[in-house]
Amino acid sequence: MSTRIAAEWTWNGERFERDLAVVFEGASARIEPAENGCTRLPRRALLPAFVNAHSHSFQRVLRGRTEHRTRADRDTFWTWREKMYHAALSLTPDDLYDAARMCFLEMALAGIAWVGEFHYVHHQPDGTPYDDPLATARAIAAAADDVGIGIVLLQAGYERGGYNRDLHPAQRRFCTADPEVLCQRTAELGRTRRVGLAPHSLRAVTLDYARRLGAFAADHAWPLHFHASEQPGENSDVRAEHGATPVTVLQRAGLLGARTTLIHAVHLTPGEHALLGAARAGVCACPTTERNLGDGTVRADLLDTQGVSLALGTDSQIQIAPLEDARQLEYHLRLSLLERAALSPPTDQTPDGLARRLYAAATTGGARSLGLPAPESRADWIAVDLDDPSIAGAEDVSLLASLVFSIERTAITDVWAGGRQIVRDRAHAGSAGIVDRFRDLQRRLW
Amino acid sequence: MSTRIAAEWTWNGERFERDLAVVFEGASARIEPAENGCTRLPRRALLPAFVNAHSHSFQRVLRGRTEHRTRADRDTFWTWREKMYHAALSLTPDDLYDAARMCFLEMALAGIAWVGEFHYVHHQPDGTPYDDPLATARAIAAAADDVGIGIVLLQAGYERGGYNRDLHPAQRRFCTADPEVLCQRTAELGRTRRVGLAPHSLRAVTLDYARRLGAFAADHAWPLHFHASEQPGENSDVRAEHGATPVTVLQRAGLLGARTTLIHAVHLTPGEHALLGAARAGVCACPTTERNLGDGTVRADLLDTQGVSLALGTDSQIQIAPLEDARQLEYHLRLSLLERAALSPPTDQTPDGLARRLYAAATTGGARSLGLPAPESRADWIAVDLDDPSIAGAEDVSLLASLVFSIERTAITDVWAGGRQIVRDRAHAGSAGIVDRFRDLQRRLW
Repeated sequence: MSTRIAAEWTWNGERFERDLAVVFEGASARIEPAENGCTRLPRRALLPAFVNAHSHSFQRVLRGRTEHRTRADRDTFWTWREKMYHAALSLTPDDLYDAARMCFLEMALAGIAWVGEFHYVHHQPDGTPYDDPLATARAIAAAADDVGIGIVLLQAGYERGGYNRDLHPAQRRFCTADPEVLCQRTAELGRTRRVGLAPHSLRAVTLDYARRLGAFAADHAWPLHFHASEQPGENSDVRAEHGATPVTVLQRAGLLGARTTLIHAVHLTPGEHALLGAARAGVCACPTTERNLGDGTVRADLLDTQGVSLALGTDSQIQIAPLEDARQLEYHLRLSLLERAALSPPTDQTPDGLARRLYAAATTGGARSLGLPAPESRADWIAVDLDDPSIAGAEDVSLLASLVFSIERTAITDVWAGGRQIVRDRAHAGSAGIVDRFRDLQRRLW
Repeated sequence: MSTRIAAEWTWNGERFERDLAVVFEGASARIEPAENGCTRLPRRALLPAFVNAHSHSFQRVLRGRTEHRTRADRDTFWTWREKMYHAALSLTPDDLYDAARMCFLEMALAGIAWVGEFHYVHHQPDGTPYDDPLATARAIAAAADDVGIGIVLLQAGYERGGYNRDLHPAQRRFCTADPEVLCQRTAELGRTRRVGLAPHSLRAVTLDYARRLGAFAADHAWPLHFHASEQPGENSDVRAEHGATPVTVLQRAGLLGARTTLIHAVHLTPGEHALLGAARAGVCACPTTERNLGDGTVRADLLDTQGVSLALGTDSQIQIAPLEDARQLEYHLRLSLLERAALSPPTDQTPDGLARRLYAAATTGGARSLGLPAPESRADWIAVDLDDPSIAGAEDVSLLASLVFSIERTAITDVWAGGRQIVRDRAHAGSAGIVDRFRDLQRRLW
């Protein structure tokens, strides 16, 4: 059985076009000329849904709880991390499920059809595995299933507090001392789900640990994700241990390849953009988080010049708005370079050239990072209201730039994920129950 | 006749409190204990609406039309300005009305109850005044009236293209060669409306011109607004003419006072933050525009330390989201300083201290800049849905930070402006007609 929908404008992979239908068959889609028998969506445009390549769903509980000064000298990523650890320590598998449902509900309403969950809260607070050592991963996967979005579980390896630093007590929950154990558990999960491996960072794992996960991921053709160069302090640590910064160390260890994604990559050293390009590795920027945590600006322009594929992630969940992330990729460059169209090469002066690059990061780039089929071929689409005040007056070639630079969530009316309509007229059927449970969780937690 | 509304949480000027009613009488409001006879708003919080202190409403037509590279070397504010001039030249008074209604409709839905319209498109394209020389100002004021938000018309004085530079042909529409004429016209408008004067910038007017407008504004106790130090190029121009940068020149000319607001103030020179503080002048930052135009980051931290009152403006209308502007005031500092809570003084470690400062910029600071009564005393309020996914789980002391850092427009359900409810259940009664007219305008224009 197939579903055929036709809107005023449809994204054909290159541009918005009239008189097209999107035909869903199962989890696949194709685009055809619109004919009779389509469900018509007047005053709507259809476009492939977003892919969120980097998420820690439990961090949704921190929203609004860390936005203040906590010491007289200097608040940073590292002081924020203490609060994040506090939350991470407090959550049961049921709580993780409730937080993830809240988070994924908002993703659905924001037009996200797939999430890459970089999952590290594996064990009981003291580090003992649960009876089912995959209990928390399964809880988070169930949350995605219940909301109706697709999930790729990126099982994170965590080994130590840092170079010559023991585990912080809160990190015991994250730690799987033996990489082989993490690989085998992920393989078990991989029998029924899309999975990947994620050596947390070169701070949190040794190079041997990272190599073992990298080899296992390569054998299974899984995505391989690392946090890398989010903070200057992380660079110094890695330099102290390895004599070089993370991307260089990973490259020398043969860990950069077409299935590798580096998360953040904010503080790259000269030449590392080219290393990533040569290795065909990708970068997942998380600008709403990077601005929140005071990480700094991803040099997306330098990465793009080297042919590095860019993806986007909501990471800490301070905001869940893929196109706000997309525009920030460009905007943070404008703020530091004091120029416009920073991400557009001199050769591309088309009126939607820059918008296409940013939209690609939110769709194609994310799909590549998570190992998913191309956006247009999946039955993951969104409808936007052409009369929403945030985009009203845009059509044809001006529509994509209006969406990328100005869309508000009110414009997203319908979302299909895996061929199933999960958002209809701006609402999700599960909202009330999910919000109630989450409110209870927050009251208990804080 | 009074209206009494009571929600679960109400902002009392200092914090959210339970069991309060907001009582509207005409355009005024007061806060009382909630008793019987109130209209109850379950799962809602009430808070004073936003004040948008800097708007060029016609620039709404540019949305999505300038976000691409236009030359091989370097796109900047100045290349954007050429497109802005093209649009400014093309619009009739009727078009200005249609663009302004679209813009003000979105402001209403975003929770803005007052706008300061920095108005410079005064004349016919060749510079000849319309039969009614206030035709365009009246058209824009009518748009605000129709949508139901309050407006302060800041009549802009424009004299020249720059130091030793004639008017650009597109600037003829803006130019009122004789400041006396602008003052008298503004006084006429001021008989029935709130007005102010706005020497466009020290690029576009001589110091004598600015002084005349400043004196007239002071005599009438009107707001006085200037663009200042938006771009390094503006600083160099002003330095070439006056031997100093704009804020210093304005201070020496006695033009900084408690009713003065400088728009942008991005490229201040050392010591100018203190000059503004000593003069009790205010600054209106427009971060969504400043990031879009590649202007740079307002050093709100340095201004705040000097006691400068901060307001916010949507300026070029690339986004209309007051709390997105508010959070960017902080975020752009985090991105450049690589620390968090940059706008919170070391002495304020309260959990909502930073959020209060940012919310104040979007309300109290804007009211001060436009010469309006205090936010809590005006019948300009908004209701937000505590179950909206962007803020769900927040209440009491965590609610304001959740709003400031994470709110999506879907959370804003109701807006009262001047005691009249203009948004109900996320909708404005005039939407369809306003959007239709605007779509027609865009089709004609581009």
